[in-house]
Amino acid sequence: MSAPNRNVLWGRALADELARGGVDSVVVSPGSRSTPLVTAVEEHDDLHVFSVLDERSAAYFALGRARRTGTVTPLICTSGTAAANYHPAVIEASQSRVPLLLLTADRPPELRDSGANQTVDQEKLYGDAVRWYKDLPEPEAEARKLRSLRTTVARALTEATGTPSGPVHLNCPFRKPLEPTPVAGDVPADLDPLAAVGRDDGRPFVATTAGTPQLDRRDLQRLAESLSVERGLIVAGPADPPGVDPQAVTALAHATGFPIVADPLSGLRFGGHTRVTTTVGGYDGYLDPRVTDDWPDPDAVLRIGASPTSKRLRKYLARTDARQFVVDPAGAWREAEFTATDLVVADPSRLAGRLAELVGGPDAPDWRERWADADRTHREVVGDATGDGAGGYFEGTVLADVADLAPEPATLVVSNSNPVRDADRYMPPAAAGYTVLGNRGASGIDGVVSTALGAGSATTDHLTLVIGDLAYYHDSNGLLSVLRCGVDATIVLIGNDGGGIFYRLPIESFDPPFTEAFKTPHGLDFEPTADLYALGYTAVDDREAFCDAYADSVASEGTDVIDVRTNGEASQRTRERLVEETVAELAE
Amino acid sequence: MSAPNRNVLWGRALADELARGGVDSVVVSPGSRSTPLVTAVEEHDDLHVFSVLDERSAAYFALGRARRTGTVTPLICTSGTAAANYHPAVIEASQSRVPLLLLTADRPPELRDSGANQTVDQEKLYGDAVRWYKDLPEPEAEARKLRSLRTTVARALTEATGTPSGPVHLNCPFRKPLEPTPVAGDVPADLDPLAAVGRDDGRPFVATTAGTPQLDRRDLQRLAESLSVERGLIVAGPADPPGVDPQAVTALAHATGFPIVADPLSGLRFGGHTRVTTTVGGYDGYLDPRVTDDWPDPDAVLRIGASPTSKRLRKYLARTDARQFVVDPAGAWREAEFTATDLVVADPSRLAGRLAELVGGPDAPDWRERWADADRTHREVVGDATGDGAGGYFEGTVLADVADLAPEPATLVVSNSNPVRDADRYMPPAAAGYTVLGNRGASGIDGVVSTALGAGSATTDHLTLVIGDLAYYHDSNGLLSVLRCGVDATIVLIGNDGGGIFYRLPIESFDPPFTEAFKTPHGLDFEPTADLYALGYTAVDDREAFCDAYADSVASEGTDVIDVRTNGEASQRTRERLVEETVAELAE
Repeated sequence: MSAPNRNVLWGRALADELARGGVDSVVVSPGSRSTPLVTAVEEHDDLHVFSVLDERSAAYFALGRARRTGTVTPLICTSGTAAANYHPAVIEASQSRVPLLLLTADRPPELRDSGANQTVDQEKLYGDAVRWYKDLPEPEAEARKLRSLRTTVARALTEATGTPSGPVHLNCPFRKPLEPTPVAGDVPADLDPLAAVGRDDGRPFVATTAGTPQLDRRDLQRLAESLSVERGLIVAGPADPPGVDPQAVTALAHATGFPIVADPLSGLRFGGHTRVTTTVGGYDGYLDPRVTDDWPDPDAVLRIGASPTSKRLRKYLARTDARQFVVDPAGAWREAEFTATDLVVADPSRLAGRLAELVGGPDAPDWRERWADADRTHREVVGDATGDGAGGYFEGTVLADVADLAPEPATLVVSNSNPVRDADRYMPPAAAGYTVLGNRGASGIDGVVSTALGAGSATTDHLTLVIGDLAYYHDSNGLLSVLRCGVDATIVLIGNDGGGIFYRLPIESFDPPFTEAFKTPHGLDFEPTADLYALGYTAVDDREAFCDAYADSVASEGTDVIDVRTNGEASQRTRERLVEETVAELAE
Repeated sequence: MSAPNRNVLWGRALADELARGGVDSVVVSPGSRSTPLVTAVEEHDDLHVFSVLDERSAAYFALGRARRTGTVTPLICTSGTAAANYHPAVIEASQSRVPLLLLTADRPPELRDSGANQTVDQEKLYGDAVRWYKDLPEPEAEARKLRSLRTTVARALTEATGTPSGPVHLNCPFRKPLEPTPVAGDVPADLDPLAAVGRDDGRPFVATTAGTPQLDRRDLQRLAESLSVERGLIVAGPADPPGVDPQAVTALAHATGFPIVADPLSGLRFGGHTRVTTTVGGYDGYLDPRVTDDWPDPDAVLRIGASPTSKRLRKYLARTDARQFVVDPAGAWREAEFTATDLVVADPSRLAGRLAELVGGPDAPDWRERWADADRTHREVVGDATGDGAGGYFEGTVLADVADLAPEPATLVVSNSNPVRDADRYMPPAAAGYTVLGNRGASGIDGVVSTALGAGSATTDHLTLVIGDLAYYHDSNGLLSVLRCGVDATIVLIGNDGGGIFYRLPIESFDPPFTEAFKTPHGLDFEPTADLYALGYTAVDDREAFCDAYADSVASEGTDVIDVRTNGEASQRTRERLVEETVAELAE
């Protein structure tokens, strides 16, 4: 309970409540104003500290970790623009419901808007992107203030893991001395022990027991009836952390007879359940009107998770006449095609489990078989065009090969832009023990390296990151975490010299400005980035060499960058040709 | 007036009004949603486009350019986290009054908060850090909407260059098609020509004539009387763009007999006026109570610009009993020692010029000589300790050598943390044609490389950047602008393996956590960063080698990184020793 000054006491109480609340790691960036917080988390036995120098990367590292674990990862930074560097990751965390706790040090209140150095307006810095914001009072070794602090930390952790989970911001003013310098009389000897050292049973100051939305029996029954139909789909979009329960969804798939349409980020693309359910993953390669206009519409669609990555899937759902149930525990209406007929506010895993016991429509094996067939045709077309001797090496085969060759268990992080789309289309459902993650909340290409390494920091899985060269460049600072945070990875860098995604868009036909302002070929050779951070580096330009390099990296210690030299334009033409071939075959 | 679709027409009208309003350059980052804006500025003959891939660096590049020129530099980015990456630079621009125009593309309003991809809440994204925010309506080829757009652009440029100048945010929604794809009937043939093509005399749609705050005759007279005293100071802090007029301040210095206490970022540390005025710059090396307690207090202090970089100067001002006039055209009370007695809301250059004609106190050559003497003693102590054969090479001599050796004219950009402080203390006032810039609004170490290259893009001056290794690492992405934006620089990288500034702080005595969480030695060798961006690279570890490398770089084309290996701790001890010696000499 003794502390050299009030700031130390305050920092310790805060760190103590973090640990009591279940936090095991904190991501800090260097600075002076945050000294009482950094010092306290550094000295706490139960808190692991990751030191990340660039705050933008730090926030994405924390995001990756929290995305992988579903538990709150706090961040600490100094005052000023440091805190603004968190903003991109805060937005991603808000949209994809990742629990973060932003602890931004601030100068004392009288210096705000005074022209003082490194003092900016940090109040509500992240606007509506946080679940809760509070400006802490100035530290004082006083019972009510300390109890308020301990309560606030407990509440912050609860808010971050509420429904929906997400980022929480506590702004933390401190005045000097910021270090553990003794200040006589600053901490009274007779301070209320509860305030000073917290609960004596090791529990949080306030322990939270929180429910999740569940339907009452009658609503559940009605919903089950609506799903007791011949043809239906379970569409699983990107999952909110900590993910859905595959067993519950599998049970519902069995009970309804519906195929599971599994986004690569749904947590349902891979896993043992794929052996016993019709899980489809190739839809982005064939859900064209030329194919589906001949299909019967589904009667009902149950949608869980966020909006699916696949635009073809979303457009297909918008074309069908089905009753569409969007399940969201936070009631957030995540359905941008405006095709939903029903919003169901309930926890998807629990809902699926309970519905499985109540539904019972006519079985429609033809319907399942139609989807399984289409998926099979898609895989065959792709396999024939890209298999041994077919010379079909392109960016899509890289994702397919990763899915084939990754060891189990693996955490696979796929960047936005093309990699997540190629994962969607070319990583078929399989029983492998893979956890696939991506930043699909705001779908930025920023912070992806750090997100991957943060996810890797939380698991003993093998970690593979598949990333385009623009995203790799954007967060190459994040590679420092390989050295400083001790995370190993295989980084598959799809090097097509700029924004290959733009070949998907009509702007491709307008050059200028296409090349200079969109494709933006930068001409960078990334080998020096590997030199800078002491990573292994191999450049490959054919499929066999990639597979060898990937297998080598998996088999060896340390982090490797495999720079897969591809042609962005040719890859896009291959994607288009494969869709045309699959569609032609299915439309026959 | 003909355009293939409404978005093209809209983008062209916006670009047209930018150019009419005096904008000559736009900084764009790749993305899809921003296509109508990017295409329009690319095709405009009078707009130069800088393409910067990382939006954080892009915003700092624009900031550097606008800081150097004082004119608005617009930025264009796509929707989503891209826009949040601007936030750090927006805060710096707000605090240091740099005119930026943030054009963030957005998805159409019905997709906001719908779960749609890459759609985030961009409304008021930068909070109070912008001077003006407006969400543009959806483009339409309709007279009133286009007139509103043209008016809005004119207004945005006016707001950005108002008093105080600063960033302005226009959020720009677009729906497909985003490319110049013809859409029949989208642009009526009989569209009002004024709305479609703007004023026919080439002027902005609305031309602004804006005044600046000036005192009326009686207030001016009273102020002049208060400054007609024996002892006074003109304290010039970091200048707002486009800077103060040295002639006006010199005239006032002559008329009052006051020395000019010139911050390195004031625009008054260097220039011809230093030959004819008492301009002091060593104050951070000697304004200790042991020295100044024996000095008479000044009677009056006239402060212009932002709060000075030097803490010793600020503390000295807080100790004096003088009447202190803080001049700020925006009336922003930038005075965090709370020692001001008077706020004067007026343009500092015009005010100085007019006051020069009205003041007339008793001349006090002793007072000027005291300051000149102190500055001379400081220079001699530093010179003796670090001169030929004295072996006093440390981080401070690097700044001194740059000031000695830079060619004229030069733009010198100094990073935050130690470089700006060393520039303050070890770059003595001189007649050289140097423009010294730094991000002293929020004093972050982020974005400094891009700030420098942006400043360099606006001038034919030689460009030198002096930067510590943490700041260099933080914005090493910014180096890509050497290649893509064609800016050359000499980059003096002060390599002390981490945060040398922390040796200034009491936390130095507490290890752990000092080394791991504050000093953060990363062990990086930065030569690969030069390889990545095809820069020259030399590592030096003594003064002579540095001077040779610097002279070589100045004499040659292209960009060089001079990696000056220093010892952060020893450098700090040298700084402290030099202050002690100077103070001892002056206190005698």
